[in-house]
Amino acid sequence: MLGQKLVAALVRAGALGERAISHLVLVDVVEPAVPTAVFTVEARRGDLADPGVTSSLAACRPDVVFHLAAVVSGEAEADVDKGYRINLDGTRLLLDALCAEQNGAYVPRVVVASSIAVFGAPFPDVIGDDEQLTPLTSYGTQKAIAELLLADYSRRGFVDGIALRLPTICVRPGAPNRAASGFFSSIIREPLNGREAVLPVSDDVRHWFASPRAATGFFLRAATLDTGALGHRRALTMPGVSATVAEQLASLRRFGGADAERLVRRQRDETIARMVAGWPAAFDTRRASTLGFVAERTFDDIVRVYIDDELDGRLPEPTR
Amino acid sequence: MLGQKLVAALVRAGALGERAISHLVLVDVVEPAVPTAVFTVEARRGDLADPGVTSSLAACRPDVVFHLAAVVSGEAEADVDKGYRINLDGTRLLLDALCAEQNGAYVPRVVVASSIAVFGAPFPDVIGDDEQLTPLTSYGTQKAIAELLLADYSRRGFVDGIALRLPTICVRPGAPNRAASGFFSSIIREPLNGREAVLPVSDDVRHWFASPRAATGFFLRAATLDTGALGHRRALTMPGVSATVAEQLASLRRFGGADAERLVRRQRDETIARMVAGWPAAFDTRRASTLGFVAERTFDDIVRVYIDDELDGRLPEPTR
Repeated sequence: MLGQKLVAALVRAGALGERAISHLVLVDVVEPAVPTAVFTVEARRGDLADPGVTSSLAACRPDVVFHLAAVVSGEAEADVDKGYRINLDGTRLLLDALCAEQNGAYVPRVVVASSIAVFGAPFPDVIGDDEQLTPLTSYGTQKAIAELLLADYSRRGFVDGIALRLPTICVRPGAPNRAASGFFSSIIREPLNGREAVLPVSDDVRHWFASPRAATGFFLRAATLDTGALGHRRALTMPGVSATVAEQLASLRRFGGADAERLVRRQRDETIARMVAGWPAAFDTRRASTLGFVAERTFDDIVRVYIDDELDGRLPEPTR
Repeated sequence: MLGQKLVAALVRAGALGERAISHLVLVDVVEPAVPTAVFTVEARRGDLADPGVTSSLAACRPDVVFHLAAVVSGEAEADVDKGYRINLDGTRLLLDALCAEQNGAYVPRVVVASSIAVFGAPFPDVIGDDEQLTPLTSYGTQKAIAELLLADYSRRGFVDGIALRLPTICVRPGAPNRAASGFFSSIIREPLNGREAVLPVSDDVRHWFASPRAATGFFLRAATLDTGALGHRRALTMPGVSATVAEQLASLRRFGGADAERLVRRQRDETIARMVAGWPAAFDTRRASTLGFVAERTFDDIVRVYIDDELDGRLPEPTR
């Protein structure tokens, strides 16, 4: 989903910073859709954990690589082998393939999607930029390992890496994925579209959010940033909005009315509740803010982005 | 070296905690020496990064695994592939092999040697138990990744892991290895044996030390500890002695006299100096101390352990 948004933004801009884009190669496990663009766009189907895929990709010698491929949290917890294969081995294969193209001169910018799932309770109420990584899921572990690899490969001059610890992206458009965090989006998206949504945790759960539009901005910023400012610490926690489920539901009511809010059905899921209890609630992201990364300021802003970007600025008419 | 000390301690004790040892399997890249013991000792030659080696080892279903195999810091920095292959892939293969033996009942205690190299500057003068991992070497990166894997596999109930962040072990007996930290030992060991040693850094460099005897004690303690006290944080920084090179040399003078101290030749090595500048100087290790891990209290204690354990308590006669 974020990949598609990012591609659309690249096509719209036609450039990254000052440099015009000449060539874009898309790789996904399903055949990627090829957008119409003023530059060449190539689509490939392939598994990141297949060395043939990563090395043919590296052979293109891209100036910038956006690595957003991942087995999401719920699936990585359910299928340990698949999670490690894609999230760890895939990332390492990609870095090694880029590395193999290196001859002292080729050092691509590599922007990797990490996650706030690298943090696990107990931690302070507001997590600063120097907090230790203590993941409590296999997904968070794999992302933390990816951050370490990226930092080491960058320190050695093999790549010029930057890892973005994304907030939970909200409101996700489209069908739910297997991320355990999916309900944070569906309790807004489904009611705004006249459909029921299930809330598996209690209303006082607090979490950290940014819109898909903000996340796209993070990737674009990371692609053109002067990484000299990062030193050897190549991972940045991205800014976001700290909100409780109750605050989310208040936003839903403001935009969709009481009818929309009534479509949220409380049905506790102990597995999800337990995972979410170990997730962070709020961050102090001054490092990223200083470097020009910007997110929304309120949860209402986040809902408005969803309505603007996914519903063409209009809420559907109430169906009942 | 630590492995041999640990084997000797196991043979001496004949037990781990309350439980008598029945069977000990030694694995190393060079054929391990088989000590005489009251229990069965088996020696195997093998590369940890060879899946056949790790799975045949796991098939023994050991109750306790001590994992001390590593490509040391200097070598892992010089040979990136070898470092990742042994320190990362080897550790993961071992964990996966133990995991494959699991049927809900078999959950071995796995004690992994980590290192204070998981910390890299800038950090506070005294590093606490909650400091983030920011390695500045590939070796430190590989150890940090091993810690993350061990924590995730332990959280999932595949193994019952504990990672020990060892101080720089000092005074190492025998010939120098390729660890960049080797000089911390050789500036004591060589002069006490009437030989010259090279000091590649300045006298005000401060670092964190424990003796081989203390390190052996750490492993034995970790094998029998109630890991319930660790929660999901399976890595512990081990206690040690914080000392400057100047303090080391003062100890050398107290034990070996001015003649010994004169055998230390200052010859700056910028590569080593740069690596060491990123290494930690002191820790607050209250978590480990509360759990019963004990090291020396002064650098004199560390020199005395060397003289007792390696020189039978006697310094060689001055040769000149």
